[in-house]
Amino acid sequence: MKKEELKEELIEGRNPVLEALRAGLPLSEILVARGGRGKELETLIALAGAEGIPVYYRERPYLDRLSKTGRHQGVIARGFLPATCSLDHLFAAAESRGEAPLFLLAAGVEDPRNLGSIIRTAEAAGAHGLLIPERRAAGLTAVVARASAGALYHLPVAEVKNTVRAMEELKKRGCWLVGADMSGAPLWQETFDFTAPVCLVLGGEGKGLTRLVRETCDLLVGIPQRGKVSSLNVAVAAGILLYEVVRRRTQAPPGRNGNL
Amino acid sequence: MKKEELKEELIEGRNPVLEALRAGLPLSEILVARGGRGKELETLIALAGAEGIPVYYRERPYLDRLSKTGRHQGVIARGFLPATCSLDHLFAAAESRGEAPLFLLAAGVEDPRNLGSIIRTAEAAGAHGLLIPERRAAGLTAVVARASAGALYHLPVAEVKNTVRAMEELKKRGCWLVGADMSGAPLWQETFDFTAPVCLVLGGEGKGLTRLVRETCDLLVGIPQRGKVSSLNVAVAAGILLYEVVRRRTQAPPGRNGNL
Repeated sequence: MKKEELKEELIEGRNPVLEALRAGLPLSEILVARGGRGKELETLIALAGAEGIPVYYRERPYLDRLSKTGRHQGVIARGFLPATCSLDHLFAAAESRGEAPLFLLAAGVEDPRNLGSIIRTAEAAGAHGLLIPERRAAGLTAVVARASAGALYHLPVAEVKNTVRAMEELKKRGCWLVGADMSGAPLWQETFDFTAPVCLVLGGEGKGLTRLVRETCDLLVGIPQRGKVSSLNVAVAAGILLYEVVRRRTQAPPGRNGNL
Repeated sequence: MKKEELKEELIEGRNPVLEALRAGLPLSEILVARGGRGKELETLIALAGAEGIPVYYRERPYLDRLSKTGRHQGVIARGFLPATCSLDHLFAAAESRGEAPLFLLAAGVEDPRNLGSIIRTAEAAGAHGLLIPERRAAGLTAVVARASAGALYHLPVAEVKNTVRAMEELKKRGCWLVGADMSGAPLWQETFDFTAPVCLVLGGEGKGLTRLVRETCDLLVGIPQRGKVSSLNVAVAAGILLYEVVRRRTQAPPGRNGNL
């Protein structure tokens, strides 16, 4: 499992810093706004102490100037964002839990808040990893870490050079590619066996799947929409799809390969 | 059906302005950045023409200065945000479609982007209305309209003075109150008949349901979480819950009262 170099970044907000501490991320220092209170902050400072990470107190305007997200909640850590990993690592994560792989490919999600929200949901749903394209999409930044509520530190993320080639690789390794597309069968009617290894494929905001990505999928499913606006936020769509897979795996006959 | 006064607001972004036009909202003028292109923009200008709403061209920096969301996409309309409505109106919306009511109560959602996203999902899922508290929560603003991708113009929203009193009123009118709370039964195991009139109850970001709101619910359901971070964004949670109700109503035996 080859790891890329770690990137030094500011990690902002109580929860992201707490999660970074809990995930054992290498932090060089933590800056706390003077006068800050709360149980979460106390836990954070205690954890930092236990890990030998220095905590420095600064006036709040100092943190305001340093902040890149504008939402630091009185805590900024200098640390390292988790490195992206290889496809092997994602498969290993599923194997180590004795489960059929459940991956998500976010092909072209541009808003870092949406990407963070997708990571948060994928981690909570028990997915084994996320694939993102290296270019023309949101990368892993402090804003993503913040929106992921710390889940970025627990969910393996693979950056792929070529989306379609990565999809072909997943297929070769036994994964079924299920694309979210309104031209597909309504989700409830799709009889595909979701206990199989699955990678859900999501398109970019507003644009959806590109033609090539759509054609590389094994099947397409649509989330039924009955309103006049007829569109879902990509992070919400990810949640609905992920949890439909979780539901079907949970309710599948016991002992079925790939049950959660 | 008593309506509050309309509020004049800036409506920003191509989709929100387009949806405002389609919903017949009273716009006084539309400002378009010079040099803007695209089919959506053409449709918008044509629609404005048909409605007799003046379109003025301005340099982009002018729109940048005017913008409150920072994401105007070259289009800002001066117009009126939809007025909130009464509970009667919400029940009438369900009745006019011959469906059992499906409402959402967002009790304490503070982030306008989350509120907008909830409105977008609720409208797409075919819910009949949203209830929000008048105080200590996000109200209906241009940011909400933007995040709702225009759905705010199609989904009835009732502002309630007292959350618990509104919940009691819903009960009296035959609605079951289903609260989202991790102490509840896992969603897939809950055998409650979701074809009945239902109002889903969501708490605020991070805090969840208050004790009083939780105790006023008829039943509580939890979305199973298997990750280490174990929390879902409130708008994503709303999507998962709403679509589980839609799925159960869709898959219920035909002819069952309240089928979608």
